[in-house]
Amino acid sequence: MKPRRSFWAWGLESDEPTQQQRREMAEKLSKQFGVAIQAPPMPRSSDLRLRPPRISPPASLAAICATDDHDRALHTYGRNFPDRVRAFNLQFPNPPDVVAYPRNEAEVRAVLDWCSEVDYVAIPYGAGSTVVGGIEPPDGYDGVVTIDLSALDKVLEIDPVSRAARIQAGVFGPALEDQLRPHGFTLRHFPQSFEFSTLGGWLATRSGGHYATNHTHIDEFVESVRMVTPAGIWESRRLPGSGAGPNPDRLVLGSEGILGIITEAWMRIQARPRFRASAGVKFATFLAGAEAARQVVQAKLWPANCRLLDPGEAAYAAGMDGSHALLVLGFESAEVPQGEFMRQAIAIARDAGGLIDEDDIKIADDAAEGAGRQGSVGAWRNAFIRAPYQRNLTVGLGLVGDTLETAVTWDRWPELEASVRQALVDTVQRVCKGGRVTCRFTHVYPDGPAPYFTFEGLGRRGAEVQMHQEIKEAASAAVMAAGGTISHHHAVGRLHRPWYDQERPDLFAAALRAAKRELDPKGVLNPGVLIDP
Amino acid sequence: MKPRRSFWAWGLESDEPTQQQRREMAEKLSKQFGVAIQAPPMPRSSDLRLRPPRISPPASLAAICATDDHDRALHTYGRNFPDRVRAFNLQFPNPPDVVAYPRNEAEVRAVLDWCSEVDYVAIPYGAGSTVVGGIEPPDGYDGVVTIDLSALDKVLEIDPVSRAARIQAGVFGPALEDQLRPHGFTLRHFPQSFEFSTLGGWLATRSGGHYATNHTHIDEFVESVRMVTPAGIWESRRLPGSGAGPNPDRLVLGSEGILGIITEAWMRIQARPRFRASAGVKFATFLAGAEAARQVVQAKLWPANCRLLDPGEAAYAAGMDGSHALLVLGFESAEVPQGEFMRQAIAIARDAGGLIDEDDIKIADDAAEGAGRQGSVGAWRNAFIRAPYQRNLTVGLGLVGDTLETAVTWDRWPELEASVRQALVDTVQRVCKGGRVTCRFTHVYPDGPAPYFTFEGLGRRGAEVQMHQEIKEAASAAVMAAGGTISHHHAVGRLHRPWYDQERPDLFAAALRAAKRELDPKGVLNPGVLIDP
Repeated sequence: MKPRRSFWAWGLESDEPTQQQRREMAEKLSKQFGVAIQAPPMPRSSDLRLRPPRISPPASLAAICATDDHDRALHTYGRNFPDRVRAFNLQFPNPPDVVAYPRNEAEVRAVLDWCSEVDYVAIPYGAGSTVVGGIEPPDGYDGVVTIDLSALDKVLEIDPVSRAARIQAGVFGPALEDQLRPHGFTLRHFPQSFEFSTLGGWLATRSGGHYATNHTHIDEFVESVRMVTPAGIWESRRLPGSGAGPNPDRLVLGSEGILGIITEAWMRIQARPRFRASAGVKFATFLAGAEAARQVVQAKLWPANCRLLDPGEAAYAAGMDGSHALLVLGFESAEVPQGEFMRQAIAIARDAGGLIDEDDIKIADDAAEGAGRQGSVGAWRNAFIRAPYQRNLTVGLGLVGDTLETAVTWDRWPELEASVRQALVDTVQRVCKGGRVTCRFTHVYPDGPAPYFTFEGLGRRGAEVQMHQEIKEAASAAVMAAGGTISHHHAVGRLHRPWYDQERPDLFAAALRAAKRELDPKGVLNPGVLIDP
Repeated sequence: MKPRRSFWAWGLESDEPTQQQRREMAEKLSKQFGVAIQAPPMPRSSDLRLRPPRISPPASLAAICATDDHDRALHTYGRNFPDRVRAFNLQFPNPPDVVAYPRNEAEVRAVLDWCSEVDYVAIPYGAGSTVVGGIEPPDGYDGVVTIDLSALDKVLEIDPVSRAARIQAGVFGPALEDQLRPHGFTLRHFPQSFEFSTLGGWLATRSGGHYATNHTHIDEFVESVRMVTPAGIWESRRLPGSGAGPNPDRLVLGSEGILGIITEAWMRIQARPRFRASAGVKFATFLAGAEAARQVVQAKLWPANCRLLDPGEAAYAAGMDGSHALLVLGFESAEVPQGEFMRQAIAIARDAGGLIDEDDIKIADDAAEGAGRQGSVGAWRNAFIRAPYQRNLTVGLGLVGDTLETAVTWDRWPELEASVRQALVDTVQRVCKGGRVTCRFTHVYPDGPAPYFTFEGLGRRGAEVQMHQEIKEAASAAVMAAGGTISHHHAVGRLHRPWYDQERPDLFAAALRAAKRELDPKGVLNPGVLIDP
């Protein structure tokens, strides 16, 4: 039997912490904040008491549909802060009524047909790692069917010459890599949610991946997409490039389940890297590090990794002392040695005031998987992968924290950094009486960075969701005012709607609504996401 | 007074050849084909006898509208083979009735409002270099107004930190570069039509530019677009990247004037290159050269130039002897020396059977503009820039020739190459009793090349357009059957519609039609392009 996902924690039920671990965390936080924090008991699946399903699947679909409380609870929320708190607190006022697990495209169509016929909401679901309410059932409908694609988990075809693979949309990150690895390939798309997110989810949300420069979003790796819509099949021609009309794939990418259900895609894959180079360059200030990152990316050296941590983040996530920012540079290739690229990047970084000893520039011209992952760079990487699990220890202890990301042009970046940080610091201070605000760049472009803010403070148990919302709203308003985007790679969902509505052209929303009417005439697909129903 | 464009030749009236030059060309072709070819007299502007305008502009717009024969003839056709022949022959059965030259966005809106109010066709026009009938007035309408954007010709703002510029859509390539150069910047978008095409045209048609790898289309250089539609202004937020919903710009890019009129855009610009490296590597066969190009681009060395000429093309365009294919490699940077990148590419090319003497690898680490443009590489570059002018000598002499381009994945490439070439050779043989068929790659991607075919044969005067169509149809059918796209960078227009309709998802066409209804409710904008009216 497949290991079961936790309905509240990141990962599987076996990833849930022990009560002892959570007590230790509570003690640690008690000391940190100077107040007594208790670790309440963790919720169990047997504690769930959900509203009974309001609808039943037709007999023809009964075999692939689940209506038990665990399945429906698991499919009620994503994994952002309010989701985790509500799930931990067993608050599931509006779960889906039915969770369907189609095993093939015909069953995807059958489920969608059923929803269209009887006007039930249909919510496409990958692995539920959304942090923007992208899969949360909306209020005010008679029935909600969540369509879990996880059974579509195969790599169907590999073209080693073109380096491309036809892949089913429901495959999770690790299973996808497991199927490519024997052939010497990798997709190398590693969002932080990698373990519990799917190809279809990445495509539907324009996920940001492994590469910090050049080809940053999953968008750039798409040859063609196949999507089931209530109006029929949408499939684009598999091409390395084209200039024939507006790119059809680009309307699917980022459509967040409102136009159809992506069932498979031809994706560009990579040969597994053999040559690597990595370095962590210290800077006196975040802005000095940003200047170096700007120059490196404008020189088009295209490092795979070009992440800049502010001093606070460098201390928290990479074990540094808090006095310096850290620019993590990484180059990799299956074909050509990377030392020269790194040397050129280091020369630029040093000219911009960066500090690194010659010995700390790691150049590995061999196939060892772990090469170049020592020191502060390795520490940062481990912290990145473990972060979502780490939060399993703190949910329900009263902490209020989250991350938010944007992208902005370099000319506006210093002002955005200052104003968003100030908004976070002020609101965290007001709401939580103090806490931690840090920032890093996850991706950088020749014309601007993608800054990623993290905040954390101590809230009041029971009020965390409201407190979180207050902070999030202040930061989002600051992002908008400073010319940023409401999301670089977390998507829009239901949570980001107010600011997304300020960002996108009104006429684009009109065009998208019109397109949706063609593909989903009854409006059953994920209503409320991106546009009003 | 501004120099006047030729209504039939590429360029200005001053670029029209002399009758003596055309007679010499006719003699040369007579020898080449073994038949007597005469050079008929060139048409003059005073020979034009167009259908009188069927409509008049309102008084408020009269000052910016032209209705004379020269203006209307110039705006009737683009510059593909049938266009040139028809213009040379003074065949203008369906010219636009009015050519409007708005001087600012308010006037663009006023012209569009007029067309919407009275149901006249409105055709956005950049510089008329379309080779797919993108600006040709459709039959069956009461009035056609062509909206020439050439007065919107300014770079409005430069952001040197982010390396971006806000640029009006009607600016021609050289004027655009002239305005960026004093600031040390360049857009570096150099389609063959560079001298007589505009930023707005490049955006509306997803033009392919200078860079042969990585960022090949103009699409990749767009931060935001501003477009006037009958329903109002569409303007996207200026951003280096975003994941918030489907990218609005991507619906505008390639929309070929059916959704609105692009008036300005924030574009990513480049520092002018100082470091260059170039090399021409010979290969025994086209396929061997293709294998080297594949490996270079899959190694992600991202050369700015990576053009592969088959032996025939190498002989014709680069002065070689016809026994070898030529891979033209070029690297450039404003920031970092390019020698090492070139050495890595050369190593790959040699491993794949490429021949080049060490002395023929040109590495120039200085600012000289012409550096690295010697030998076969320089010869190719000059031929590329002069090609459209060259055809001014042959139009009307009975030659039938054209170019067509596609893109296809590497696994399908050898079959596409063979079948499209065969279709061209067979049809040119049948229609013209022999001629020349060559191929080159204009751009290459990790997952496939963009092949560009050239054909030429001797037709019969008066029958050239029909003969051309027969060849073009056979080649296009072969492209479609082999899995290619009907256009990598020439766009769709009216000419490519039958094959484009096979290529794009039907549901995308439905979505595009629905979007157009929102933005252009009366359907006045460029009807028949991309989708049926």
